[in-house]
Amino acid sequence: MKLTAEIICVGTELLLGDIVNTNAEYISRALAAIGVDVFYQEVVGDNAERLRGVVSQALSRSDIIITSGGLGPTYDDLTKETVADIMGLSLVRDADTEAAILEFFRKRGIKMTDNNMKQALVPEGCRVLKNSCGTAPGICIENKDKTVVLLPGPPRELTALLDEQVIPLLRAKSPGRVLLSKNINVYGMGESAVEDALRELMLGSANPTLAPYAKDGEVLLRVTASAQTEQAAENMVDDMIQSVRGIIGDYIYGIDCGSLQNALVTKLRRLGKTVSTAESCTGGLVSKRITEISGASEVFGCGICSYSCETKEKVLGVRRETLEKYTAVSAQTAAEMAEGVRRLSGSDIAVSVTGYAGPTGGTPEDPVGTVYIGVATEHSVRAERHTFGRNAAEREYVRYLAASAAISAAIKALDE
Amino acid sequence: MKLTAEIICVGTELLLGDIVNTNAEYISRALAAIGVDVFYQEVVGDNAERLRGVVSQALSRSDIIITSGGLGPTYDDLTKETVADIMGLSLVRDADTEAAILEFFRKRGIKMTDNNMKQALVPEGCRVLKNSCGTAPGICIENKDKTVVLLPGPPRELTALLDEQVIPLLRAKSPGRVLLSKNINVYGMGESAVEDALRELMLGSANPTLAPYAKDGEVLLRVTASAQTEQAAENMVDDMIQSVRGIIGDYIYGIDCGSLQNALVTKLRRLGKTVSTAESCTGGLVSKRITEISGASEVFGCGICSYSCETKEKVLGVRRETLEKYTAVSAQTAAEMAEGVRRLSGSDIAVSVTGYAGPTGGTPEDPVGTVYIGVATEHSVRAERHTFGRNAAEREYVRYLAASAAISAAIKALDE
Repeated sequence: MKLTAEIICVGTELLLGDIVNTNAEYISRALAAIGVDVFYQEVVGDNAERLRGVVSQALSRSDIIITSGGLGPTYDDLTKETVADIMGLSLVRDADTEAAILEFFRKRGIKMTDNNMKQALVPEGCRVLKNSCGTAPGICIENKDKTVVLLPGPPRELTALLDEQVIPLLRAKSPGRVLLSKNINVYGMGESAVEDALRELMLGSANPTLAPYAKDGEVLLRVTASAQTEQAAENMVDDMIQSVRGIIGDYIYGIDCGSLQNALVTKLRRLGKTVSTAESCTGGLVSKRITEISGASEVFGCGICSYSCETKEKVLGVRRETLEKYTAVSAQTAAEMAEGVRRLSGSDIAVSVTGYAGPTGGTPEDPVGTVYIGVATEHSVRAERHTFGRNAAEREYVRYLAASAAISAAIKALDE
Repeated sequence: MKLTAEIICVGTELLLGDIVNTNAEYISRALAAIGVDVFYQEVVGDNAERLRGVVSQALSRSDIIITSGGLGPTYDDLTKETVADIMGLSLVRDADTEAAILEFFRKRGIKMTDNNMKQALVPEGCRVLKNSCGTAPGICIENKDKTVVLLPGPPRELTALLDEQVIPLLRAKSPGRVLLSKNINVYGMGESAVEDALRELMLGSANPTLAPYAKDGEVLLRVTASAQTEQAAENMVDDMIQSVRGIIGDYIYGIDCGSLQNALVTKLRRLGKTVSTAESCTGGLVSKRITEISGASEVFGCGICSYSCETKEKVLGVRRETLEKYTAVSAQTAAEMAEGVRRLSGSDIAVSVTGYAGPTGGTPEDPVGTVYIGVATEHSVRAERHTFGRNAAEREYVRYLAASAAISAAIKALDE
């Protein structure tokens, strides 16, 4: 029998629309991946009576209940108390959690307030899920045929607890088919173009399934197979990936590779090469994304954020004539920026970004959204022109897409 | 009497976690702004029985029900049919909608399929809300003391219908009180410490209310007042802000100010000063955050991402003896980095970051999470030591907090 789950997110800030409910999405996706059906999601505020109603209803109709939020130290954090009360469990002090909380505050040198110790109370007989990112532990209550999991609201804490502890635990409860997914990372092709190219594969196969997700200028293709064994599922998934490669292989930059920057750092490490960056409109976002990969220090030389013309000239050695004749946003300037930071750092390749991120700026020929990416290698120096975004409200989006283009250009430059 | 609302989002894609539920957030925020309380949000799939259950429950406990999704032309779009059935209304053909659908397809030159005409059916006696972005109109049913609004799922269509037609309609139903909120931006104090300090204010006042929200190392305090006039509400909110300032004023960096980087850029512009950055472990995140504020170009000189010791020495002029004697992660190096980039750029102030973001690195004295922030002004050069995060899984979080500390240090340095 397939298990059904229900997700309850607790927090008045959700009901006020102050934050988007990414927790419900994350939990739902994780449950779908292990074959657990989610039939309901609810959001309820920090109100004992309404929370009680929602939890009681969930217990009456779902096998698994996962809550997020309301485990904090303050008086309006009620989830644990309410659930324990409904299930007839008293709260007891958990020594490990108490020690962890004391250590948390000691290490940071912050004064602990009395209400923090409220977080060391857990329903009797529950499984305590150690939270390595915060003070509120996760809690798993297994009671007859119901499993109730309480998770803290901060997404960083919730996702770590869910991935590392809750999903393995729930997977063990699910019956014998294996579900396996891999993601194909696609860059440089829009979602509808991808869908168009792969329509037959997508519609023609019920197992494995092939589904596209567009996100931030990239497309992720998820391949999911269900089989009797891990090996059989893996073979089915890999066959599908081969078929997709046969059609849009040029646009695939990785399998389960997480991000363009991850693909770049991996490739640089494999080749023993280094990269540097010179950024104008992205303001450091390219170097930030590359260095978010642990181990990037081995392959990242130097990043210059040259927002002003003065810095372009003085630090990167862009010629004044170039800036005057072609302006700071031009293929010529982009090329000299890349060349300049490559020379300064001595790295193998360098990329640069200069453009109009908006909302102001731009020219009739190069409106807001126009970005030049410079590439310098030991063989050549060049620049490419891109146009992103559709209106001036998208500054951060234009910057993100420009950074992606620069990282993708660096990946390709390594093939020269 | 205050009206209460409930939001029901219909769509299996939400339950699978394929998309984030931004509609619920958008509707909630719009309702909060006109003083309507949302007590519940639900998500249910394209399943008639479960949808019926959720809608019936909502009708039994809320004055206003807003649904999103399930108004499309396909067989699994069930919202309109289910709601009409529960409320005992039959579906009738709406001539205007029928004409609009025909026109929609004619204009685009797309062949219309029979099921599209299903969208021209509406519950008898309802108000049809013309959808200028798509083929499914919104529907408003007013029945005794209940108002049920059905909106299409695509966010672009939903937000247009909500803003232009639904909110004005609901505002007319709400009694004449004005609701006003302002946010107090707090940095450098944890949520429970803030709550501890403000407990009496929070518990002692029902109007205006004072509520803390913790996010990414900061605390947002929302002050909300309800009054007969805008001016009265404004006065109540401002009085509360004054009281809060009296207690934790040193930690407040702005009112409705959005972010630390926004506060910094605003202050720099007001003073006509400039800032530069030198970053090691944050890899460009500080310059990225400062330059995400439109207009930062006037106040941002130059950012150097000096991940390697070579760059620290060659570009920033950190002395080799300093790097050898104290290492790259030290107060001395941080100070010389800040001094170096200030000299290089000629900016008024400069901040630097060097530390161990993890997951590897660190020393017994300076474990992962240790970060030094350097500050250089025309009067002094100095560095401060911070400890962030608790374990190696938190690289991006440590980097984010370190960047916040650097931006906060820059704000303070401007007071010298």
